[in-house]
Amino acid sequence: MNRISYIDNIKEWGSDFSFKHEIKVRFSETDMFGHLNNTVPFTYFEEARIEYFNSKGFMKDWTSDGSNEIPVVADLQCDYIQQVFFNDQLMIHVKAASVGNSSVDIHYMGTKQDGSVCLTGRGTIVQVSKTTGNPIPWPEEMKECMARTKVKHS
Amino acid sequence: MNRISYIDNIKEWGSDFSFKHEIKVRFSETDMFGHLNNTVPFTYFEEARIEYFNSKGFMKDWTSDGSNEIPVVADLQCDYIQQVFFNDQLMIHVKAASVGNSSVDIHYMGTKQDGSVCLTGRGTIVQVSKTTGNPIPWPEEMKECMARTKVKHS
Amino acid sequence: MNRISYIDNIKEWGSDFSFKHEIKVRFSETDMFGHLNNTVPFTYFEEARIEYFNSKGFMKDWTSDGSNEIPVVADLQCDYIQQVFFNDQLMIHVKAASVGNSSVDIHYMGTKQDGSVCLTGRGTIVQVSKTTGNPIPWPEEMKECMARTKVKHS
Amino acid sequence: MNRISYIDNIKEWGSDFSFKHEIKVRFSETDMFGHLNNTVPFTYFEEARIEYFNSKGFMKDWTSDGSNEIPVVADLQCDYIQQVFFNDQLMIHVKAASVGNSSVDIHYMGTKQDGSVCLTGRGTIVQVSKTTGNPIPWPEEMKECMARTKVKHS
Repeated sequence: MNRISYIDNIKEWGSDFSFKHEIKVRFSETDMFGHLNNTVPFTYFEEARIEYFNSKGFMKDWTSDGSNEIPVVADLQCDYIQQVFFNDQLMIHVKAASVGNSSVDIHYMGTKQDGSVCLTGRGTIVQVSKTTGNPIPWPEEMKECMARTKVKHS
Repeated sequence: MNRISYIDNIKEWGSDFSFKHEIKVRFSETDMFGHLNNTVPFTYFEEARIEYFNSKGFMKDWTSDGSNEIPVVADLQCDYIQQVFFNDQLMIHVKAASVGNSSVDIHYMGTKQDGSVCLTGRGTIVQVSKTTGNPIPWPEEMKECMARTKVKHS
Repeated sequence: MNRISYIDNIKEWGSDFSFKHEIKVRFSETDMFGHLNNTVPFTYFEEARIEYFNSKGFMKDWTSDGSNEIPVVADLQCDYIQQVFFNDQLMIHVKAASVGNSSVDIHYMGTKQDGSVCLTGRGTIVQVSKTTGNPIPWPEEMKECMARTKVKHS
Repeated sequence: MNRISYIDNIKEWGSDFSFKHEIKVRFSETDMFGHLNNTVPFTYFEEARIEYFNSKGFMKDWTSDGSNEIPVVADLQCDYIQQVFFNDQLMIHVKAASVGNSSVDIHYMGTKQDGSVCLTGRGTIVQVSKTTGNPIPWPEEMKECMARTKVKHS
């Protein structure tokens, strides 16, 4: 696992998450090779990311009718560390690895019930205007709110 | 196949379709039992139905920004006649079985490359107001347009 | 709601469920009309049905490597009573409405947090041989087990 | 677009594809923000990758009943260059960017009908044993076959 570009030290990286969301693998998410289809973890990432944003009160703004700001995914990646099967109960951990002016680099770690890592991932979210598509800077309190959840390693 | 409530005579019913749309089964649409997951044909029905409406010029109105009318699915059903597998090339046939004031009963038939029927289905589409949710009657020309595709059995 | 063929009396029918499973609507399950896409409730039905079978210990047999019996969906239908939105927390209720020799008619009811019904559905599950595709009768204890969950209305 | 780690020169990189597969965006693949949901391009990548492998005769082996070799996805990433909408007709271009002993780095480029790039991506596929999960080296002819499709830039 030392070839993953966004992870320097897996131990340290893995201990840095303060938010988690539980997901159970659905039967319809398996494929004929008998395991979780490779396209599905991105759905888990989205669900966990939204719960993370929800926990900070961000989603309400983004999904309200009058809102002009929406979060868009600029890039997304997943490393499949271990095969995942039907009925597996996963914990998807989420953190804001770095916060930019109007973007945030979100990291994900999926663990099985025995605590072993089965998925890792990351992706950039940008807040944009629904009408123009241009980036909209985070309000200061959103920025602080995301930064606060980062556990600092001294 | 004589137990399907919306089909009196399968031969006659099957000969009554004038629109068809081709779909290839995706790998991600199979499940660990090795065949097409049961939830997927409804996606095929939607895709074929939209192509059917597209062919009549209806979708443009419904998906234009200012439009207040949208089509909603009131009910939907599928009968799984034959197992479907990865890579199968299906033809989804669509017809307006009966046209109401603001609704239409759409029928579906999925066939394999050998012409055998693997899926049948039906469902009611209602045109409603995006804001109030109330039914909006079809304009006379939409009604005629859908009725015209019905092949009459004398 | 009196036009639904599998429901005689909605009050009585709705009081007849003894199993339920909670589901939260995912963002990726909405569509550009702003509500839950019509193809998704069938995924919820499958998830809830499997949890129902799980609660009876059936799934373990069906998904074990050596097993020759698998459950297949013979037909499936859904009535969309109320629009469902992102973040809605649904309760999917499941019951075995009638148990045949090698099949079972499963009924579904989806309710919102205020208890109102948003989805109803039903579908036949048949136990078949993985190799021949032929129906395999339920063992007596499975039959009894499913029948036992039916609340009898005197 | 110069921040994408797997693309040195987008012009050169984009001219290097010899296989393409057409995909039309489904209605059910949009989300309530009105565009293609971020989880869907991975489904397109899989579909196009399989068509690419199909064109080389690889899929037949992998999906045959007796086969012990299966291709698994080791990692996957997508960069969202341009928003994609319902009904968009995309061309997904596929190439084997580099071929290892038992793995291959597949690159993807999605273009709109006007030729503009809307998606880029890449991911490692590894051929493994279904039973042990261990990597299985490509036969020499598969290796050559994939390498042959690489257009060399002199």
